[in-house]
Amino acid sequence: MADAEGTKQPTVEPVAEEQPADGGEKGPSKNELKKRAKEADKAKKAAEKAAKQAELAAQKAAAEVDYAEAYYGKDPLNQSQARPCHHYTKIADLNSNLDGQDVIIRARVQASRAQGNKMVFLNLRQQTDSVQALLIVTPETVSKQMVKWAASLQTEAIVRVEATVKKSPEIIQSATVGDVELHVNKIFLISGLDGRLPFTVEDANRPETEIASTEEVQYKRVLLDTRLNNRVIDLRTQTNQAVFKLQSAICHLFRDHLDNLGFIEIHTPKLQGAATESGASVFKVGYFKGSAFLAQSPQLAKQMAIAADFERVYEIGPVFRAENSFTHRHMTEFMGLDLEMAIEEHYHEVMETLDNLFKHMFTGLRQKYRKEIEVVRKAFPADEFKWREGPEGTLRLTFRQAVDMLVEDGVPRENLDDIDTENEKRLGALVKAKYDTDYFIIDKFPMALRPFYTMPDPEDPTLSNSYDFFMRGEEILSGAQRIHDPALLIEKMKEKGIDPESMQSYVDAFRMGCPPHGGGGIGLERVVMLFLKLNNIRRASLFPRDPRRLEP
Amino acid sequence: MADAEGTKQPTVEPVAEEQPADGGEKGPSKNELKKRAKEADKAKKAAEKAAKQAELAAQKAAAEVDYAEAYYGKDPLNQSQARPCHHYTKIADLNSNLDGQDVIIRARVQASRAQGNKMVFLNLRQQTDSVQALLIVTPETVSKQMVKWAASLQTEAIVRVEATVKKSPEIIQSATVGDVELHVNKIFLISGLDGRLPFTVEDANRPETEIASTEEVQYKRVLLDTRLNNRVIDLRTQTNQAVFKLQSAICHLFRDHLDNLGFIEIHTPKLQGAATESGASVFKVGYFKGSAFLAQSPQLAKQMAIAADFERVYEIGPVFRAENSFTHRHMTEFMGLDLEMAIEEHYHEVMETLDNLFKHMFTGLRQKYRKEIEVVRKAFPADEFKWREGPEGTLRLTFRQAVDMLVEDGVPRENLDDIDTENEKRLGALVKAKYDTDYFIIDKFPMALRPFYTMPDPEDPTLSNSYDFFMRGEEILSGAQRIHDPALLIEKMKEKGIDPESMQSYVDAFRMGCPPHGGGGIGLERVVMLFLKLNNIRRASLFPRDPRRLEP
Repeated sequence: MADAEGTKQPTVEPVAEEQPADGGEKGPSKNELKKRAKEADKAKKAAEKAAKQAELAAQKAAAEVDYAEAYYGKDPLNQSQARPCHHYTKIADLNSNLDGQDVIIRARVQASRAQGNKMVFLNLRQQTDSVQALLIVTPETVSKQMVKWAASLQTEAIVRVEATVKKSPEIIQSATVGDVELHVNKIFLISGLDGRLPFTVEDANRPETEIASTEEVQYKRVLLDTRLNNRVIDLRTQTNQAVFKLQSAICHLFRDHLDNLGFIEIHTPKLQGAATESGASVFKVGYFKGSAFLAQSPQLAKQMAIAADFERVYEIGPVFRAENSFTHRHMTEFMGLDLEMAIEEHYHEVMETLDNLFKHMFTGLRQKYRKEIEVVRKAFPADEFKWREGPEGTLRLTFRQAVDMLVEDGVPRENLDDIDTENEKRLGALVKAKYDTDYFIIDKFPMALRPFYTMPDPEDPTLSNSYDFFMRGEEILSGAQRIHDPALLIEKMKEKGIDPESMQSYVDAFRMGCPPHGGGGIGLERVVMLFLKLNNIRRASLFPRDPRRLEP
Repeated sequence: MADAEGTKQPTVEPVAEEQPADGGEKGPSKNELKKRAKEADKAKKAAEKAAKQAELAAQKAAAEVDYAEAYYGKDPLNQSQARPCHHYTKIADLNSNLDGQDVIIRARVQASRAQGNKMVFLNLRQQTDSVQALLIVTPETVSKQMVKWAASLQTEAIVRVEATVKKSPEIIQSATVGDVELHVNKIFLISGLDGRLPFTVEDANRPETEIASTEEVQYKRVLLDTRLNNRVIDLRTQTNQAVFKLQSAICHLFRDHLDNLGFIEIHTPKLQGAATESGASVFKVGYFKGSAFLAQSPQLAKQMAIAADFERVYEIGPVFRAENSFTHRHMTEFMGLDLEMAIEEHYHEVMETLDNLFKHMFTGLRQKYRKEIEVVRKAFPADEFKWREGPEGTLRLTFRQAVDMLVEDGVPRENLDDIDTENEKRLGALVKAKYDTDYFIIDKFPMALRPFYTMPDPEDPTLSNSYDFFMRGEEILSGAQRIHDPALLIEKMKEKGIDPESMQSYVDAFRMGCPPHGGGGIGLERVVMLFLKLNNIRRASLFPRDPRRLEP
C-alpha cells in the first residue's frame, strides 16, 4: 500500500521523554537532551522518507512488468492497478524538435484509414489538437494482427499509444500539429464504444447553416436538438471546447475586475421561504412538510448583504425562472453574474462600475482568447464585437431618447410604452448604424416597467434610477438604484400588489439602517451567446434547461 | 440629464460624404477629403467631450448649492438628486498625517455619548474599522440644536459627516483608528432606524461562551438562533465581516490553484430530470406539468464533462440535501467546491491534486489573511490550524489503519464497519496526538460505504479507490476514482438497486468513450467552520438553510 505510512512509522521516540525532566546527576544535560531529541526527530523523518521512496520504487518496478507485457490490446491500467509514473505528452506540445523521441500519449481516435493490410493511419485528437499516427507492419515489433486490431478501433475510442515522433516529410493538413507524425510501437485501448455514435465529432464541427427559409429553420432546429440530446458528443467539437473556455474566461474576468475594486464574493441561498421577488413565476419545491421556492435571482439576499455592511458584493450562481418560454434567449436555469454596492452620491457610480466591468471583459477576451474566438467564428460567422473604446466612452441613451430613435425610424409611438424584443433588435441596428457600436446602455426606464424595489427618479416619479445594458441589440444586464428606505419600499410593494408581510426579513433589513445602493445582474450565457453570435442561448450552456428539457 | 449624449450629439458630419467620390476637377483631392473628414471627426469628438464636461460642471455646481444648504439633518442626496463628486474617505485610511485636513465620511454610529448639552462623542464604524468623532458647540458653525440632534442619533444609523481630522492627544482605545479624532462640521442622516435593534453589534461582537453544561447549551442555542433570526445585524460584527472575507478567500485560492493546473470552470444544472444519484433524499420541484429534482451534487454532470473531453473541470455551486438533520454540520443547502479530472495511470494523481490544493488554501489563508483569522479567534478561541508541511507530506491512512488505531484505543472492532461522527472525532484526536496534524487523508474505503459510481480496488473488490479528507477530525472532502466502463457501472447500479434506465444520459456518456477519471467534492462552509473552529456550520453560511430555517 502506498498509503501505509501509518503502520510503517518507525517507533523512534524523542529521547527526552524517557529521561528525568530536570537533569539528574548522571543524566545528560538539558541541552544534550534537546539535541538528541532533534536528532531522533530528524532520523525519524529520514526513515519515513526512505521507506516511502523504497515503496514507490517497488511499486514502479512491479508496474513496469505488467505494463510491458503486450504491444496492443485492452489497457490493463484502468483501475489504478499500478503507477509506473510515466510522462504523458500533450499533442499540443509535439513538434519537429522532438524528432526521434519516444512519447506516450492518451488520445481519442478521431479517424482511422487502413492501407492494405500492412499499414493504418490514425488521426488522434486531444480537445482541439490532433496529430497523425501510423502503424506499419515491422518484424518483431508491429505484427499484422496488431495493425488489423488498430484498424478496427472505433471513432472516438480512447487509446494510449507509445510512439516515436518523426518529422513529417510534408505538412499534414488533416491534423492541427502538421509537422510531425507518430510511429506507433504499442497501442492500448483505454475506453471503447458501446454502440454507435449519433454523429461524428467531425460532422458536428461543420458550421450550421444560417437561417434562411422556414424549411431551413425546421432543419436547423432538429439539428440543434440532436446535438443537445447527445450533448456529450457535441461538446467534444472544437467549437464547443472553445465556447466553454470563453465562458470560463468571462467569469474569471468578472471576478478579477471586481476583486480589484474591493468587492467580496458571497453565496446566497437558492431556497427561499416565499415566492415574492417580483410576483413572476417561480419554481415550488417540496420542503419537508412545507414548501420552498427557488430564487429567481439573488436580489433580496445581496441587498441584505449591503444592509449587513459588506459594502460591495458579487455572486456567480444559478438563477431559476419558471417561464414557459421557448425563445432563443430564455432558459429555466441560467447563471447570474450579480453585483451590488453601496453608493456615495449617485447611482451612476454603479452604472459606471458595471460599464468598466464590461469593457474589462471585452478587452480581456480579445487580448487573451483570440484563438478561441476564431475557432468559434469558423462555425458561427460574425462581425468582430465592437464597443466604443475612445474618450467619448460608452454610448448612453435615456429610455426616452431610445424611443425617439425608434419613432424617427417609423415605429408608432403608441407601441413604445415598453421596448419589446423586436424593437430592441431594431434599436440595436439603428445604434450600430449611427454610432458603430454593438454595446450601449439605456438609462432612466419608466418606473412602471421595473420591479418594486427600484428607486424612482427624484424629479419625475414616472421614471426610475434604472438601466439596461445591451449587446448586439439584446439586453444582457438589468440594474438600478434600489430603495433603501423601508417606508418608501412598503409603499411601492403595495402599489405592485405585494404584501410586505410576506417579505418581512427583507423589509426588516432596511429598518435597521442601510446605505443607498445599487447593482445589476448579468446573464452569463447571454453574454457568451451575443459576444460570439451563437444565435441560441442553449449553445452557451453546458447542459441547457428549458420547459421541455431536463436531460442530459 | 447626464445621459443626454444621444440628443446632444453635435451634427457635424464627415465632409467627405458630401463631396463627389472621385475628386471632380475643381473639388479637393482624395487625400484632402480624407484629411477634412478626419478633422471633422476630431472636432465632433472634442465637441462631444466639451458638452459632456459642461453638463457635468453645471450638475456639480447645482449640487453644491443643495449640498451646502444645511449643517445637519436628513441627507438630501439619497435618491441620486445630484452628484457633487466629492471624495469619500475610508476610516481605515485615516491617520495623524491627515491632521488638519477636511474629510467626508459615510459611516454607522456605533455609539454616542453626550457630555452636558455642548458636546457629543460619536463612535463611527465602517465594517471592522472605527474612529471617534465629536461635536462641540461653536459660534456660527456648530449650534446647540445640532449637538442635540447628533446626540439623539440611534446606534446603527448611517451618517455622512464632514469633519476636520485632528491628531488625538492620546490613543483612543475604543476605536480601531486611535491616533486621530474627527471634529465634525456637518452631519447628515443617510439612513435611520425604524424600530429597535434586537441586539447591538457591540454585544454581538462579544465571544459566545463555550459549551460546558446542558444549561449553557440551551442558552447558547437561543443565542445562535437570535443571531440567525436577525442575521443582517449579526453579520455586521467584526467576527462575521472577517468570516466571510475568509470564505471568499477560500474560493479565490481554490480557483487560483486549479486555474494554474489547466482546469476550467464549469456550471452544471441544479435542476435534474431524475432523483437518482445515490437514492438518498432529494428535493422535488414542480416543473411545469411534471417534476424535477434538485441536484445533491454536480457529480453526474461533471463526470459527463470529462466524457466530453474537458479533461479537468471544477465548479463552485450550491448543492441540496433533503436530510431532516439538525447536527452542527448539516445544512439543506451548502456550497460545493467540486473538481473532476481525467487520470493517466492512478487515482492517487487526483488525491495528490486535492492534497496540494488544500495545502495551497491553508498556506494562502495564513499568509494573506492573518488579520481576519485573528479577529475571528477573539470570538472563537482555537489552536492554530496545523498541517504537515515537511517533506514527509500529508498523513495518509488507509481505512483499515484508521480502524486499527481506533481499536487500539478501545473501540470495539464490530462497531467499525463504518467510522461514525463520534469515532471520526476520536480518530482526529488520536491523529493529532500522534502526528501533530489537524489535516489528514483516509484512503481505501470499503466499497459498501461508497456510492455506485466508485471504482472498486483492483485487488480486493470489497475495497474501493476512494478517500476522504479530514480537518480537526471532521470530513470535509469525499472523493474517488469513478467507474468509466459502462458495463461495470450498470452492474454496480443494479447492486445498489438503481435502475440504469433512470439515468440513461449518464450511462450513455460512458458508452461513447470516457477516460479513467476521479475527483472530489469539498464542503465550503465545513472548511470555513473547521479552519476557524466556529463549532456550528450555520456560522459559516451567510443565510443558512436547515429543515426549520428558510428565512432570512
